[in-house]
Amino acid sequence: MKLPILEIFGPTIQGEGMVIGQKTMFVRTAGCDYACSWCDSKFTWDGSEKEKINLMEPEKIWQELNQQAGGRFAHVTISGGNPALLSGLGAFVDLLQANQIKIALETQGSKWQPWFVNIDELTLSPKPPSSKMKTNFAILDNMIASLKEKQKGSCSLKIVIFDLTDLEYAKRVHLRYPDVPLFLQVGNDQTENVDDDKLLHYLLNRYDWLVQKVMESKALKNVRVLPQLHTYLWGNKRGV
Amino acid sequence: MKLPILEIFGPTIQGEGMVIGQKTMFVRTAGCDYACSWCDSKFTWDGSEKEKINLMEPEKIWQELNQQAGGRFAHVTISGGNPALLSGLGAFVDLLQANQIKIALETQGSKWQPWFVNIDELTLSPKPPSSKMKTNFAILDNMIASLKEKQKGSCSLKIVIFDLTDLEYAKRVHLRYPDVPLFLQVGNDQTENVDDDKLLHYLLNRYDWLVQKVMESKALKNVRVLPQLHTYLWGNKRGV
Repeated sequence: MKLPILEIFGPTIQGEGMVIGQKTMFVRTAGCDYACSWCDSKFTWDGSEKEKINLMEPEKIWQELNQQAGGRFAHVTISGGNPALLSGLGAFVDLLQANQIKIALETQGSKWQPWFVNIDELTLSPKPPSSKMKTNFAILDNMIASLKEKQKGSCSLKIVIFDLTDLEYAKRVHLRYPDVPLFLQVGNDQTENVDDDKLLHYLLNRYDWLVQKVMESKALKNVRVLPQLHTYLWGNKRGV
Repeated sequence: MKLPILEIFGPTIQGEGMVIGQKTMFVRTAGCDYACSWCDSKFTWDGSEKEKINLMEPEKIWQELNQQAGGRFAHVTISGGNPALLSGLGAFVDLLQANQIKIALETQGSKWQPWFVNIDELTLSPKPPSSKMKTNFAILDNMIASLKEKQKGSCSLKIVIFDLTDLEYAKRVHLRYPDVPLFLQVGNDQTENVDDDKLLHYLLNRYDWLVQKVMESKALKNVRVLPQLHTYLWGNKRGV
């Protein structure tokens, strides 16, 4: 079974979320069922890089990872697009685990896959109102219940925050799933900005704003508030 | 039993380590058995703020936390100095947990306390050569074995890295305790710098350097590399 792959790169650090700072390899799949207004990886679904998609068998992805970084990695992050669209990813997950590789995966939680239970660090990132997408909470409810019952690793919720409406959405999600670790992340609405220093200061200001708002909140007590560290280090550059 | 307290502040984010980004209150104890050359909290042990030490009973600290942030916190970080010098902290830990508060604590791992097993997120931060301190690995071995056996929460190792000699030390520690999550942290040797923007760029350069070194390494595969986020947001300012 072949998988549509757009990028394989690393080792680098995971810049965000529950394993922020982790040394990892990235495998980015093509295709998404969402079209978030501020998506920082639009090339995975807007057709602009259609001709760059590589259809690869799991064994071939594994070979490519080792060619790039053999002996220097023990962790792979599968990102998208929405990798949960690919039922065939289960075989790749199995292959990595047979080679003692830990696996993180990020998905918006719109579609369940049985192989989710084998992911070591699963991030569910339902999208707030600013994205213009609509969360299907019935699906998310079932997903979180299934993970609680069957997942060997751990899972978390991550919500990107651009404004106060997004923050209200985050409170509702936190109230609905109080036992699932919640990460709030500064939104980057400057994904075209190539002035790294301006971007850095803009994003630090947004982070400061988000921290202040969460510190004032009684509803958001047990949460973590994080930036995207890769944007601090490398701006909007891809492949790092 | 009264405890020597130097600072109580928050809620703010934990800027570093295993729960980076966590909304938390800080309680800083006075006194340390180490005197690291680059310590960023020398005032806890160099006598310069001796007259500011408050001797407080656990119940009084709890009252103070609630006065500052009642209803807005569910997590407390105990820091120092070295809080492990205080056998009496166990009563404070019990009090917090009776009130459903999660507790993180940081210590260099030079001294064991039975109440360590009740800490939710325990960071052991043995000091690398640049500190001019010497790690007692026999004590650390026992501590990690005891935690593995009895701790309800989780523990991690955190090593501050200033140079390549520190990085070699980190590799030795990782080899000795391969199963304990290892966090490598950018050292801040500019703790007197009050030019926040210069400090930010300096520390980002140091983070970039550390990331590159770790990415090249075969010995450091399953590790996390992190900055101190509070220095990005607030420079060397205290109490935030």
